[in-house]
Amino acid sequence: MTHYMDVHHGMKNITAEQLKAAHNADLAAERDEGVHFEHVWADPGSGIVYCLSDAPSADAVQRVHQKAGHPADEVHPVPLSA
Amino acid sequence: MTHYMDVHHGMKNITAEQLKAAHNADLAAERDEGVHFEHVWADPGSGIVYCLSDAPSADAVQRVHQKAGHPADEVHPVPLSA
Repeated sequence: MTHYMDVHHGMKNITAEQLKAAHNADLAAERDEGVHFEHVWADPGSGIVYCLSDAPSADAVQRVHQKAGHPADEVHPVPLSA
Repeated sequence: MTHYMDVHHGMKNITAEQLKAAHNADLAAERDEGVHFEHVWADPGSGIVYCLSDAPSADAVQRVHQKAGHPADEVHPVPLSA
């Protein structure tokens, strides 16, 4: 298991409620893939959303997002942190 | 105070030790600006580093990174999280 940071663009004006609903959709879809979405941050101004997950692969992260209806634009492993 | 996510590119092959040293340089420089760098994640493969901070402004985040010798390529407020 590795940490992944994935990025969504085009989410301008996203609200706290919409972000929470999107995160809950990921949490509902993640189990079959062995993924856990730990945290999500959003900038409604630029429309960028960052998601931090612990997952077996980038493909698994993307499959969960696709199942939840919001595929990511980028998925990067982030094996180092401090 | 708002959370900010800033992004650095061009850090290919960064090691755990280099990431820790860079984070420590931010922690040493942050106090005068009222910024706190909470966490940093790195992908040595693509050379992308993400930093999460709590700060009074994007300019304050950037000033700390500049003082520490590694200005960010992007700084985004992320007022929403889940």
